[in-house]
Amino acid sequence: MVLVEGVYTYTPASMALVVHKYGGTSVADAARIRNVASRIVEVHKGGDGVVAVVSAMGRRTDELLALAQDVSDRSHPRELDMLLTAGERVTMALVAMAIEDLGVPATSFTGSQAGILTTGRHGQAEILEIRAGRVRDGLDQGKVVIIAGFQGVDPNSRDVTTLGRGGSDATAVALAAALGADRCEIFTDVDGVYTADPRVVASATKLDEVTYEEMLELASAGAGVLMPRSVEFGRRFTIPIHVRSSFHKGEGTWVKEETMEEAVVRGIAQNSDESKVTVYQVPDTPGVAASLFEPLAAAGVNVDMIVQNVSHDGTTDISFTVPSVSIATARDIARGVAASVEAGGVSIDESIAKVSVVGIGMKTESGIAARMFRLLSDQGINIQMISTSPIRISCVIAGDRVDEAVRTLHSGLGLDGEDPQ
Amino acid sequence: MVLVEGVYTYTPASMALVVHKYGGTSVADAARIRNVASRIVEVHKGGDGVVAVVSAMGRRTDELLALAQDVSDRSHPRELDMLLTAGERVTMALVAMAIEDLGVPATSFTGSQAGILTTGRHGQAEILEIRAGRVRDGLDQGKVVIIAGFQGVDPNSRDVTTLGRGGSDATAVALAAALGADRCEIFTDVDGVYTADPRVVASATKLDEVTYEEMLELASAGAGVLMPRSVEFGRRFTIPIHVRSSFHKGEGTWVKEETMEEAVVRGIAQNSDESKVTVYQVPDTPGVAASLFEPLAAAGVNVDMIVQNVSHDGTTDISFTVPSVSIATARDIARGVAASVEAGGVSIDESIAKVSVVGIGMKTESGIAARMFRLLSDQGINIQMISTSPIRISCVIAGDRVDEAVRTLHSGLGLDGEDPQ
Repeated sequence: MVLVEGVYTYTPASMALVVHKYGGTSVADAARIRNVASRIVEVHKGGDGVVAVVSAMGRRTDELLALAQDVSDRSHPRELDMLLTAGERVTMALVAMAIEDLGVPATSFTGSQAGILTTGRHGQAEILEIRAGRVRDGLDQGKVVIIAGFQGVDPNSRDVTTLGRGGSDATAVALAAALGADRCEIFTDVDGVYTADPRVVASATKLDEVTYEEMLELASAGAGVLMPRSVEFGRRFTIPIHVRSSFHKGEGTWVKEETMEEAVVRGIAQNSDESKVTVYQVPDTPGVAASLFEPLAAAGVNVDMIVQNVSHDGTTDISFTVPSVSIATARDIARGVAASVEAGGVSIDESIAKVSVVGIGMKTESGIAARMFRLLSDQGINIQMISTSPIRISCVIAGDRVDEAVRTLHSGLGLDGEDPQ
Repeated sequence: MVLVEGVYTYTPASMALVVHKYGGTSVADAARIRNVASRIVEVHKGGDGVVAVVSAMGRRTDELLALAQDVSDRSHPRELDMLLTAGERVTMALVAMAIEDLGVPATSFTGSQAGILTTGRHGQAEILEIRAGRVRDGLDQGKVVIIAGFQGVDPNSRDVTTLGRGGSDATAVALAAALGADRCEIFTDVDGVYTADPRVVASATKLDEVTYEEMLELASAGAGVLMPRSVEFGRRFTIPIHVRSSFHKGEGTWVKEETMEEAVVRGIAQNSDESKVTVYQVPDTPGVAASLFEPLAAAGVNVDMIVQNVSHDGTTDISFTVPSVSIATARDIARGVAASVEAGGVSIDESIAKVSVVGIGMKTESGIAARMFRLLSDQGINIQMISTSPIRISCVIAGDRVDEAVRTLHSGLGLDGEDPQ
């Protein structure tokens, strides 16, 4: 949670303060870094204050991870964070240099220097508070401020931390909140948020606008363009987020409180990175679900969907999905619990996928679920699990049918064409 | 200058505290990093406390410099330091991981975290003070402490700084002083300090011992194995420095207060990285030398030797040497001054070299200078400039004769053979 220190007013009050974020592909080489610098300078020369959050160049984080694996096959969370934070440090210095070359003063700060205080959980730290004094001083001096994404410092141990996947987006939106910025622009290698993955659905169209709620559901359901955490920051502090391409100047997708047009179905998301665990013939007694999910939580396994079937003969089946990387841990825990509660056994399915339909209008318009199930059924696609939220319906299906399912739903729910619903 | 905070006693008082320093070639890849880790662990398991200062891996600093040049052809001192300090950060984390893999707790600190406070001169900062609280805490907890060399922080601006060439050696020796360490071991890619460069003189032998004074003179005269600054730290705080190979366990060279055997001539150093400027027919009036050397100092040009000939006809010639990288600046300044004081003109010689004979015994034994001049003369090598200290004689000669001069002096002054004088 960002504990904003108080309202900060950017000094030239008639101008806006914007936070930019540039991902690894946007700063992959010297030419792209100069390109990023000129985009930032253009905004600065227009009179707005700019804070830019940058990621490590290209595949540098992966290279550093590989280096760590070459040296050691064990886990060293503190030192790994120390290592990985070198990546953004390089980018931020280079971007600051390129901006100064264009005649605009710039200064770079690490996460620690920028006052990004986090929990101490290395590799998956959470931002607790941003003490942005140095960032504000830089802005007040008319400088562009460049900040290393993905990193912070644990104020107790004074050790450097990283925020985990999507951490640079989270840095940018949290900073925008802490600084009271007018907007946060996420520059990336895609043009924005689409009605479905354009690599899967040729007729997918870019969305001009999407609500925070919808974006949260889409991101949680597998749309990779933004991490749920960043969207949550934006929602809580009402920071408009603009997801756009770093390679051209066209408008991308605005993520905001309300959209001009309320969509019944805004988009289709898919996720093939989960696996399913079923514990069958579980004695249907109080506390049995807790005895399963408590040890999973303690082991840090992120359980996504949970379905418990109606009890018959005093036993029930419990199915749940977890990220595929955690399947071995989840399986072992489930087997242990199954044995101790005298369940029938445990089965694993690693070849599943999840397809989700998201739209704010589903709050008021019923019938979308029924249409979704019918469309899948007409295509002969069997639904294994279902979960819903007020603005989302997700179905687990066979992994090898997911692209087909997405195309079927995109077309059947009226998203095809230039003007998405 | 290191302002030691007070005497620090390493807790297990019967054991020693040692500071190691590993240069770039010693940590160039994963295998070498694991090798460094096992050397450190061996010392730690012997019961001694270890602080290890590390450089960036292999040519990484040069790669980062090249990256900066790709992005910008201008000077960005603050951001360049931010960039370059990423190099040691990577090494220190990897070394800490490799040590922990060997079952010994380790923790890494940046220069800033280790309390290395410097002046604000980016790229050439000087260590002002070491506030080693976190380092001491780590040692008291039984950990090996790994520290990024070559870097610190300016306490006024809170900006990260680098110490310039040889900065990691300076970090190690200054830390040894601040911690009251028993010795500082500089692990490098050579076996120690030699009577002459072994690539030039086949019969050069490794010195077992050399005094601080001699090492200072040898280093200033071009022996690349240690920078003068580090030796000066060692001398001031009487920290024995052991220069040794990181690739085998043989003894290297001890740099210390006194040596077992006082040598008349300890070694021959050579330097081909300087150029000579002569301002001729300078009016021999008070203040004319100052008017030349003040602007050179202000421009940051490191003047080495200065020779002013005896005045005749009311004018004199002033010659001086500067690092070849500074020759353009020095030439322009000299021309400006020559015009303003109505001197005859300025000539430049970029093809010079300096050969120096160093030995503590020269303080008491005269005649070495005469023998040196005779040996060079017999070989037909002309001496252009001479400068002396109580324990050194340096001659500037033609650059293409320097290897020959070093071999002649090495042999003629009795240094050849297994048992150097």
